[in-house]
Amino acid sequence: MVLLIQCTDRQGLVATIANVLAHYSLNITTLREFVDTENNRFFARFVCEGDADFESIKADLITALPEDAAVTINPNPKKKIVVLVTKEYHCLSDILVRNHFSTLGAMVECVIGNHANLADLCNRFSVPFHYISHAEKTKEEFEGELISVINTCTFDYIVLAKFMRILSPAFVAAYPIKIVNIHHSFLPAFIGSNPYRKAFERGVKLIGATAHFVTDSLDEGPIIAQETIHVNHTFTPTDMVKAGKEIEKSVLARALQLVLQDRVFVYDNKTVVFEN
Amino acid sequence: MVLLIQCTDRQGLVATIANVLAHYSLNITTLREFVDTENNRFFARFVCEGDADFESIKADLITALPEDAAVTINPNPKKKIVVLVTKEYHCLSDILVRNHFSTLGAMVECVIGNHANLADLCNRFSVPFHYISHAEKTKEEFEGELISVINTCTFDYIVLAKFMRILSPAFVAAYPIKIVNIHHSFLPAFIGSNPYRKAFERGVKLIGATAHFVTDSLDEGPIIAQETIHVNHTFTPTDMVKAGKEIEKSVLARALQLVLQDRVFVYDNKTVVFEN
Amino acid sequence: MVLLIQCTDRQGLVATIANVLAHYSLNITTLREFVDTENNRFFARFVCEGDADFESIKADLITALPEDAAVTINPNPKKKIVVLVTKEYHCLSDILVRNHFSTLGAMVECVIGNHANLADLCNRFSVPFHYISHAEKTKEEFEGELISVINTCTFDYIVLAKFMRILSPAFVAAYPIKIVNIHHSFLPAFIGSNPYRKAFERGVKLIGATAHFVTDSLDEGPIIAQETIHVNHTFTPTDMVKAGKEIEKSVLARALQLVLQDRVFVYDNKTVVFEN
Amino acid sequence: MVLLIQCTDRQGLVATIANVLAHYSLNITTLREFVDTENNRFFARFVCEGDADFESIKADLITALPEDAAVTINPNPKKKIVVLVTKEYHCLSDILVRNHFSTLGAMVECVIGNHANLADLCNRFSVPFHYISHAEKTKEEFEGELISVINTCTFDYIVLAKFMRILSPAFVAAYPIKIVNIHHSFLPAFIGSNPYRKAFERGVKLIGATAHFVTDSLDEGPIIAQETIHVNHTFTPTDMVKAGKEIEKSVLARALQLVLQDRVFVYDNKTVVFEN
Repeated sequence: MVLLIQCTDRQGLVATIANVLAHYSLNITTLREFVDTENNRFFARFVCEGDADFESIKADLITALPEDAAVTINPNPKKKIVVLVTKEYHCLSDILVRNHFSTLGAMVECVIGNHANLADLCNRFSVPFHYISHAEKTKEEFEGELISVINTCTFDYIVLAKFMRILSPAFVAAYPIKIVNIHHSFLPAFIGSNPYRKAFERGVKLIGATAHFVTDSLDEGPIIAQETIHVNHTFTPTDMVKAGKEIEKSVLARALQLVLQDRVFVYDNKTVVFEN
Repeated sequence: MVLLIQCTDRQGLVATIANVLAHYSLNITTLREFVDTENNRFFARFVCEGDADFESIKADLITALPEDAAVTINPNPKKKIVVLVTKEYHCLSDILVRNHFSTLGAMVECVIGNHANLADLCNRFSVPFHYISHAEKTKEEFEGELISVINTCTFDYIVLAKFMRILSPAFVAAYPIKIVNIHHSFLPAFIGSNPYRKAFERGVKLIGATAHFVTDSLDEGPIIAQETIHVNHTFTPTDMVKAGKEIEKSVLARALQLVLQDRVFVYDNKTVVFEN
Repeated sequence: MVLLIQCTDRQGLVATIANVLAHYSLNITTLREFVDTENNRFFARFVCEGDADFESIKADLITALPEDAAVTINPNPKKKIVVLVTKEYHCLSDILVRNHFSTLGAMVECVIGNHANLADLCNRFSVPFHYISHAEKTKEEFEGELISVINTCTFDYIVLAKFMRILSPAFVAAYPIKIVNIHHSFLPAFIGSNPYRKAFERGVKLIGATAHFVTDSLDEGPIIAQETIHVNHTFTPTDMVKAGKEIEKSVLARALQLVLQDRVFVYDNKTVVFEN
Repeated sequence: MVLLIQCTDRQGLVATIANVLAHYSLNITTLREFVDTENNRFFARFVCEGDADFESIKADLITALPEDAAVTINPNPKKKIVVLVTKEYHCLSDILVRNHFSTLGAMVECVIGNHANLADLCNRFSVPFHYISHAEKTKEEFEGELISVINTCTFDYIVLAKFMRILSPAFVAAYPIKIVNIHHSFLPAFIGSNPYRKAFERGVKLIGATAHFVTDSLDEGPIIAQETIHVNHTFTPTDMVKAGKEIEKSVLARALQLVLQDRVFVYDNKTVVFEN
């Protein structure tokens, strides 16, 4: 059993929770707790062994904890995701392969592309692909079409796997802390478009990738995971793009693993990530 | 307040401990717990805010916990170490600098060298240096002299900062889980002497360093921290030695930080390390 | 144009080569040269701009260079590979995806598996799969069948993408410096089978992967690329296997990129790798 | 012998240079050449074995190469540096230790601090320290005093080892490509002051350090080396500062090694770095 709790901090919270778990004869095998003392905020993740009536436990916890407590027990283990893409295959193929072999930690419900070229890849993996072009449409029209397809799906997260259109605040607001994006730079360096060209021109010796939840400020949502790799003077912008794809792919995979294993809390535009 | 507990696992331990802490009005700000289910072993580290009578808390915990519980409250914050060296300066100087500026997390009580060349460095930092040559002595005689100096010191740990003599089982047994060594390879690769020469001959593309507690099997004690760096065909054995010194220094520094901050538990020849 | 030369070292080699290239009006844009002074061995890789009669250049170079010079101009840019697998999909899928989108730097001619389960994946990417079971066959019979399929292919390299059978010296000898293997440990640590179980038991804090050419000594061929990642006490052997797959995949991809871009020389059971 | 050449590119340059070296019976043991094709710029570093009259070689090369060729043979192997500091000890101590044991690749001529607290450290290593306060002085007055001390020294480079005053364009212009700075962020992220506070507020998962030559645009000079390390939600700004010091120290050490070994060329506000 996995138990997640976020609430205002006060003395005695761990005792309160642990007593409830002990009452139901559950054994805590891994526990991480963290208090953001600046914001007086409590975060905890309990992994327990044993069987019990989860609804009763949850009711007991909600009674015992501060009013603003967000309590989740055994978050949906059969999560589903919708993936949005543009033209690049490297992140999508990584997701589709893991999905195919049931190691993604979620099921890919469908893929939506604003270009058609990745339809073939999805077909090869028997995953539905919807082509919704943005061409000659207002952002509102385009997003309306996206939403109409998305709303036919059940899903836990929307994954932007190199989706190169900026989503409107209205779209983002409809799916709070539900949209995961991979940005092709080490944020906050090189916000916006063409980060590799900017990196080349600046002559940096590292390039990076950042996975984050999407909020209505471009590239400024809570960061889940980041990674960098070395580059040097021999790298053209094209070489940087190519090298960057490798970490974009691995950082997104890592971030999805953390999110889908319910290891990520969000508060105050930051994340608390309880890794292994 | 920092509280460390290691004992046989059983249901309800976190509740038991958290209740004691709540009883004393302490607030847990960071908590990590881990159960080694293969060995049925419980490890926990609590960081709390608040003041209380630590002796009473400890007594209450010992009463409430399994008989084999090792309970430590506020482990000595003014730790002391004895450092053993041979000829190389890079790890020792790193320790002496941190010691000098009070960022080591311990006080260097003295340095013992089986060569004399590092005496000058210690003098410059006003740290006592004892020269005890191993030349023309049996191991027993040599270690007898080491022990006679060591026993004049109060210390929490003995740090082998590139001490190139193999210690006898008798010596090691006298200081269980008290001796930290830095080995100049990524153990268990290249156990024993001349690891860089062996690495060169094998043509590896990474070299490493390992910090571990010393047990009576050479280079086989519980590992605290490890790191690797890239090398290539242009590296001579001498270049590898030089590059290796950089990670030997940083891995030892990292391991000491973990040990001195009471983040490392040992069981079954392995470590449980609760990093940030 | 790419020019590769390996030969006994002597004074004036760079001048000799550069004069030939200048004679044909080629401009050298990237040049790396290295002399293994211990073995008196010269290695160089020239990248040039300009057109010329490559056969004439090669003839001129062979005349001008030491007798043992291996001279390669514009090595086959349309390389082909044969991939051998057992049951695990992670390395194979990475290769198949890159192959499908023409970013592998080679064409996958066919895949041979000693289990049948990866046939479906190959079919999805329209790549021929040959199932050759090792069951109830002598090694000689099994390898005879492998060879009979391999010999129907044209290929530059055989890639062991988690092929879990040990190949005989006879098989290996038939394809010298043509077989690339990915080993699931940081060699020379944990040679042989079950490296992750051994790593778990030793309590290491890093696990690794090694790509190497296969020679007749198990896991002892020239190393092309290696990488490590951090693990900790929370990792079960199964978790290590899972984490390890990520670097097995990326190290093999990196090694193939280096080999297929003709950046790797082999001599004296080591590699000289001219990365970017 | 080490030979460095930078000039406008044209066909035949390697041949021209290699012929001169062969004429003097020198054997090239390591050679790296790179052409920046976008800027039509040639960079090369030759390492040779053998003795010869370097003045003659240089004269021959200058005659044979394009007019704008910068030719350096055996750059001063006994380099000297002046170090500027403010209050932090970590970079300075690293430099002083290496200087003391003759592994820095340069001699520290003197240290200048705008605070007095690091005088003691310099004294311990018998290195002259000059205290020049900036308090109650105009920038012009302050820099005038710096320059009057600097000009009493012979030096190859000025190293800003956590010197926290911004230098004027006039000062910088007086020492072009002679001033190496360590900036406590992964540039171009967090330009300017308080980068760790900004990093904390943004919730990044990596922090970095950048060593660069100083130009008259703040933090925008040619980058020599960069590195990042992982941080997480448990890091306060103070923890980030502490963790950051470790990479500031190692990145500056790495950059100095590259610069002092004459492996760094500068052109068009970028560096060409020929590492091993």
